[in-house]
Amino acid sequence: MPQAPIFQASRATQPTQPMLLCFNEELSSATRLAQAANLTMSRVERHRFPDGEIKLSLPDTLPPQVVIFRTLNDPNEKLIELLLLAQTARTLGATHLTLVAPYLAYMRQDIAFHPGEAISQRIVGQFLAGLFDALITVDPHLHRVASLQEAVPVAHAVVLSGAPLLSDWIAARRQHPLLIGPDEESAQWVAKAAERHGFDHAVCRKHRHGDRAVDVALPDMSVAGRQVVLLDDVASTGHTVARAAQLLLGAGAASVDVAVTHALFADDALQVMQNAGVGEVWSTDCIAHPSNVVSMTNAFAAALTQSHASPA
Amino acid sequence: MPQAPIFQASRATQPTQPMLLCFNEELSSATRLAQAANLTMSRVERHRFPDGEIKLSLPDTLPPQVVIFRTLNDPNEKLIELLLLAQTARTLGATHLTLVAPYLAYMRQDIAFHPGEAISQRIVGQFLAGLFDALITVDPHLHRVASLQEAVPVAHAVVLSGAPLLSDWIAARRQHPLLIGPDEESAQWVAKAAERHGFDHAVCRKHRHGDRAVDVALPDMSVAGRQVVLLDDVASTGHTVARAAQLLLGAGAASVDVAVTHALFADDALQVMQNAGVGEVWSTDCIAHPSNVVSMTNAFAAALTQSHASPA
Repeated sequence: MPQAPIFQASRATQPTQPMLLCFNEELSSATRLAQAANLTMSRVERHRFPDGEIKLSLPDTLPPQVVIFRTLNDPNEKLIELLLLAQTARTLGATHLTLVAPYLAYMRQDIAFHPGEAISQRIVGQFLAGLFDALITVDPHLHRVASLQEAVPVAHAVVLSGAPLLSDWIAARRQHPLLIGPDEESAQWVAKAAERHGFDHAVCRKHRHGDRAVDVALPDMSVAGRQVVLLDDVASTGHTVARAAQLLLGAGAASVDVAVTHALFADDALQVMQNAGVGEVWSTDCIAHPSNVVSMTNAFAAALTQSHASPA
Repeated sequence: MPQAPIFQASRATQPTQPMLLCFNEELSSATRLAQAANLTMSRVERHRFPDGEIKLSLPDTLPPQVVIFRTLNDPNEKLIELLLLAQTARTLGATHLTLVAPYLAYMRQDIAFHPGEAISQRIVGQFLAGLFDALITVDPHLHRVASLQEAVPVAHAVVLSGAPLLSDWIAARRQHPLLIGPDEESAQWVAKAAERHGFDHAVCRKHRHGDRAVDVALPDMSVAGRQVVLLDDVASTGHTVARAAQLLLGAGAASVDVAVTHALFADDALQVMQNAGVGEVWSTDCIAHPSNVVSMTNAFAAALTQSHASPA
C-alpha cells in the first residue's frame, strides 16, 4: 500500500553566508545582484497545480540572513507567493528576511477617495511588514505619506531612486534637455533628476476622469525648440504621458522622449505613446521591459552590503 | 487646480443587523443565503486597475457582525481580496468577521513531502485565522489533521458536509447503489454518505505519479451488475475518477456516476470522465459548475443562525 512520504528533518549544516532567493522569471537579474552583493543564490521552485494552487520548494536549510528578490508588478498572486515563501523560510532557519522589491505594488492607493474604500497601501504595507524584517525598493509612489515606513512599517527600509541613473542616461543623449513631469505627483522625481545635471524642469497639472481619461495642462513656460523628456516614477496605460506629449509638440517642442523608473506599461501603452509623437522610451530594469536601459543592480548591491554589514 | 478628494467620515448610524458581504460573481448564491439566514446583504465593488491592482469599496458603515461569502477555488487573488476586505471591514465598524468559504483552498498541502517544501495548509490557515473570527466551510480536505482548527486556528469553526445531501440525491435516482471512493482519502466522505441510506461502500487504492498520472486498484469485491457511484470531496483533473470508472466498467459494473462536494474541475475534466464511461456527474453548489445539483444554502443558514444567536 502506497504510503505518504514522511518529512525528514534535514541534517545539513546551516549555511552562514547570506542567501538570495529568487523565482525563475527573475533569474538573470537576481544572478547579477547575487554576484554584485556577494550572496549565495538559490531559485525557489514553483509548482502550479491544475486547480490554481501553487506549491513552493526552497533549499532544505537556509542561513540566518535571507534576501528575497521579487518585483511586484501584477501583484496579487506574487503577494501570496511571498506569504508562503517568507513563512517557510523562517521554518528552515532564516531569522532575518529582506525583501528586495524593485517595484512595490499598491503604493498609489493611499487614501479612501470615497467612504468605504479599502486603503490598500496600508493593508498591503502591514502585510509585508508582518513577513519581512527589511525592505529595499525603488521610487515607491509615496504621495501623501512622508516615509516608506509609514506605508510599510518594517524595522529597516531603504528607498533607492532611479532618477539619478535616468538623469545620467538623458545627459549623455540630449542637449540641454527640459525635464517635464506629467503631473504634480511627479515633482519629487523630476526635481531629483534635474538637480543632478542642472536641467531645467517643471511639471504639468493633471485632472483624471478615469483609468484612461485624463486632462493635462502644460506648465507656464516656453517649450519651443526644446528637447523635452517626460519623466515620472511609473507609467501604466501611457495616456497621461501621451496627452502631455501631444501638447508639448503642439507648443513647439523639438522632441519628446519618456523616462520612467517603473515600466509598468499595460496593454498598448507603448503604441499609445508613439501615436502621440513620443520618440524614445527609457526605463530602469525594476520591471523587465524592452525599454529598460539602466540597471539598478549596483544600487541594490550597495544597499544590501551596507545592510548586512550592520547588525541584523 | 484639481484637488484630491478628502475622506469624509460617514455620519450614518451603525446598523445592528448582521450583514452578508459578497462579490458580484457570487451574488445569486449569497442572495439566497442572506434571505435564508435573515441577513442584510451588500455587494463589495471591485475595480481592477490596468496594472493588475484591485480596489475594493464597501458600504460606508458596517454592523458589528459581518459575514463574508467567498468560495476559494482558484484562490490566490481571492486571498488578497479577503485581506483587503477583512482589514477594511474592521475600520468600518465590524468587530466579528465570519468567513463562509464553501470551498476552502490549500487544505491538501498539509505536509512537506520533501524537505524545503512550503506547508501551505498551515500558512494559509494562519493567514485566514488572522483575518477572521469564525469560519464555516464544507468538506475541507483534512487528511492528516484531525480538526479544521488545527489547519485554520480561528476562534470558531464549523465544518459542514455535502455527503448527506449527495446521498439523498443518489438514493432518489439509483437502485441499491454501491458507493466507491476513488482513493483511501475519500473514505471519510464515502462512509458518511453510505451510512445515511445504508448503501454498500468501499474505497480504491491510489498511487499518484504526477498531477494527471495515477494508478488505481479496485477494492476486493464484486461490482458486477452494480450501479456504482464514485464519491469524493473534490475532483480536479478527473483523472483518478476516470481511471476508477474504466476499471469498474471493465469489472462489470452496470453504470458509474460521479458525486463530489467540490466541482473544482479543471480544463477538460468532464470530457476525461465521459471518455472513461462515466454517466452523470453531480455536485453541490460549493463551486459553481453545470454539474451542481444540491445546494448548501440551508446548511450555511442554519450554521450562521446558530452562530449569531450565541454571543460573538
